[in-house]
Amino acid sequence: MSGERIFARYRIETALEPEHAAEVMAGEQSTGTFIKVPGETDELREHHAARVERIEERESTDRPSLPGAAKSKTEPAVYRCAHVTLSWPISNMGPSLPNLLATVAGNLFELKPFSGLKLLDVTLSPAFLSRYQGPQFGVAGTRRFAGVSDRPLIGTIIKPSVGLTPQATAEMVQALVDGGIDFIKDDELQADGPHCPFSDRLREVMKVINRHTDKTGRKPMYAFNITGEIDDMLRRHDEVVDAGGTCVMVSMNSIGLPALVALRKRTQVVIHGHRNGWGIYDRSPAIGMSYIAYQKFWRMAGVDHMHVNGLDNKFCEDNASVIASAKECLKPMFAPPLPGCEIMPVFSSGQTARQAADTYKALGTTDLIFACGGGIMGHPDGIAAGVRSLRQAWDAAVNGIPTEEFAKDHRELAVALRKFA
Amino acid sequence: MSGERIFARYRIETALEPEHAAEVMAGEQSTGTFIKVPGETDELREHHAARVERIEERESTDRPSLPGAAKSKTEPAVYRCAHVTLSWPISNMGPSLPNLLATVAGNLFELKPFSGLKLLDVTLSPAFLSRYQGPQFGVAGTRRFAGVSDRPLIGTIIKPSVGLTPQATAEMVQALVDGGIDFIKDDELQADGPHCPFSDRLREVMKVINRHTDKTGRKPMYAFNITGEIDDMLRRHDEVVDAGGTCVMVSMNSIGLPALVALRKRTQVVIHGHRNGWGIYDRSPAIGMSYIAYQKFWRMAGVDHMHVNGLDNKFCEDNASVIASAKECLKPMFAPPLPGCEIMPVFSSGQTARQAADTYKALGTTDLIFACGGGIMGHPDGIAAGVRSLRQAWDAAVNGIPTEEFAKDHRELAVALRKFA
Repeated sequence: MSGERIFARYRIETALEPEHAAEVMAGEQSTGTFIKVPGETDELREHHAARVERIEERESTDRPSLPGAAKSKTEPAVYRCAHVTLSWPISNMGPSLPNLLATVAGNLFELKPFSGLKLLDVTLSPAFLSRYQGPQFGVAGTRRFAGVSDRPLIGTIIKPSVGLTPQATAEMVQALVDGGIDFIKDDELQADGPHCPFSDRLREVMKVINRHTDKTGRKPMYAFNITGEIDDMLRRHDEVVDAGGTCVMVSMNSIGLPALVALRKRTQVVIHGHRNGWGIYDRSPAIGMSYIAYQKFWRMAGVDHMHVNGLDNKFCEDNASVIASAKECLKPMFAPPLPGCEIMPVFSSGQTARQAADTYKALGTTDLIFACGGGIMGHPDGIAAGVRSLRQAWDAAVNGIPTEEFAKDHRELAVALRKFA
Repeated sequence: MSGERIFARYRIETALEPEHAAEVMAGEQSTGTFIKVPGETDELREHHAARVERIEERESTDRPSLPGAAKSKTEPAVYRCAHVTLSWPISNMGPSLPNLLATVAGNLFELKPFSGLKLLDVTLSPAFLSRYQGPQFGVAGTRRFAGVSDRPLIGTIIKPSVGLTPQATAEMVQALVDGGIDFIKDDELQADGPHCPFSDRLREVMKVINRHTDKTGRKPMYAFNITGEIDDMLRRHDEVVDAGGTCVMVSMNSIGLPALVALRKRTQVVIHGHRNGWGIYDRSPAIGMSYIAYQKFWRMAGVDHMHVNGLDNKFCEDNASVIASAKECLKPMFAPPLPGCEIMPVFSSGQTARQAADTYKALGTTDLIFACGGGIMGHPDGIAAGVRSLRQAWDAAVNGIPTEEFAKDHRELAVALRKFA
């Protein structure tokens, strides 16, 4: 571990010289403060100061993206953008994700020299592998649990998101498994509210799934939303395992990294990471944390799946960003022979049979979960037809047959394409 | 609990009619999805749909604050801003902070109708008091531990932030307690790195503090940064208690709500909540979560102190926002006879003797921690003089004597005012 360094890359926007602004960041996040103090000796700085590794200047802008920053003194005003890479000795914080977060994404977003500051990427050192377990199941384990080897897992979200009773949820699950679904998830709004208690929902749903498994030999994966306090999450996890379930879901931003690490230590099933609230981090180009940086923390902590939105989604994220995120989930974090900690990207949000071909073309693999709520439940011929339309759309995509062409003799697909035009 | 509702207020910016945009938010975060699905019956909506309670239109703008939103179709373009209040039945999520967060700050920041969306406030219902403990010590308990009844706690942060050995830290603590300090905290960058292991730092620092207590009868409070994984935090907490310490510190954004709740269940000492990384949430007016909303989650979960920046700080936050935040910490979350869950605001960041008078004038109370790093360590006559300058500045403020006037016969204050001019 000794000598290892952590790297973080940022986009900054500043009225200062980018070199000077980068030094302010490095000082604030290691040995410095707003005034020189006696204890900050040269030796201490040499061993513990963050270093500015690289500065690449980018486009500049004539008005500050965020309020409160030091003003441009030039006329016309210029706020200069740059990508800045800093590094820290790991001895400053040790291989600890919470302490790393306080270092690379702590008290710097509000610093006065910056009218924009966003964490774009972070590079963890191998020391983290000595303390964290990373994903336990990832792509291969998920495929094994779900019994799907050669195509994406076709998934869905229970809709309406909230309001269904445990029995009504189980009835929907019955229709979905009858229709051939691979993966089902609770909505992130559905947890353990009094109208649909977790244990009751689990019991009713697993009755259906276990019966289906006995009959067909294949067990669709259901991601039960266990998000909550730690003891509750661990208890719910154990209940899922006891009931024969294969996946638990958590809202990552609601639980935080240490709770996920505690769950990862205990879990015998796949952890499905829902990123709801992620827009706070990544929607603005001026502030926050990119998905590329964000997902590394959660992968190291132990999620097996992470959401990436989908092509032509109902949110603001553009398609290039969606695909970059998905590719990143599948990219090793460490070079062999160290574990790569790859995870399975989850496509969702307004997904229907329409997006299968382009998704496959852009991603170049079927290692993904393709989750459709309305795209299944909203199929005019019902849930089973909705599921079949998606299987058909992916069959077409993988076999290089244009979707419209394939739809000519696949009725459910044809109906879906008309409905979701 | 039955019938209780949760309220959340947002600032939105949209090219749509605000009424329509608000309905989209309410639908997404309760029973709806992007398409009508069969299970969303009128009865289910009646019991579980979020309600639009209030819309107040504000200023509009001619360009969208965030990219990716639905475009304005009018010429010239208009993006309309409004404050929107939504409410949810608590039966949707139960009194659970993580599930509440997924509901009021989940998958909505990226919705296409919005070129801006920020959570401004949230109102918890009393049901949360049945499940959460809130702050254990707050203002009164902090004062009791620290032995300070009638003025702010004068505090400091150990600087340099990282790089000092346990012994060097203890030497600094010795100078600080000799100088009359009330409160000392680790920097948030200092946790349990190999260059300054937590247990060694605790042992060396508490030796100094316990010796000082034996001699003077007063125990300055030291906030040991226990931020890390849950087991580590609980173990470090226990070590602090065993060593006679009175406070632990956590970086809230690094640990998440459930870890704090677990700590709150165990703690016998004050929990100091550091908000580093908060700029991601609140710096942009267009996106994120205001401090007013943010602090309610953490108070309910159990922190006793929370950072609010300080007047004329080194960050971008303006003074009005700092004071509004501090006042909010001191404002009850529930009406009597329910507990108010008030906490102690922590002023910090570039604070010196200069800001005491204005802080007291604006806040109208001494129920705060006034933490100065450079403002103490950077005093030309040393640490003890730095501490004395702050005590003098607050004496002047509370007694209504102009600082410059009081400085005439208080040398340390006079030197501080010259140094930090």
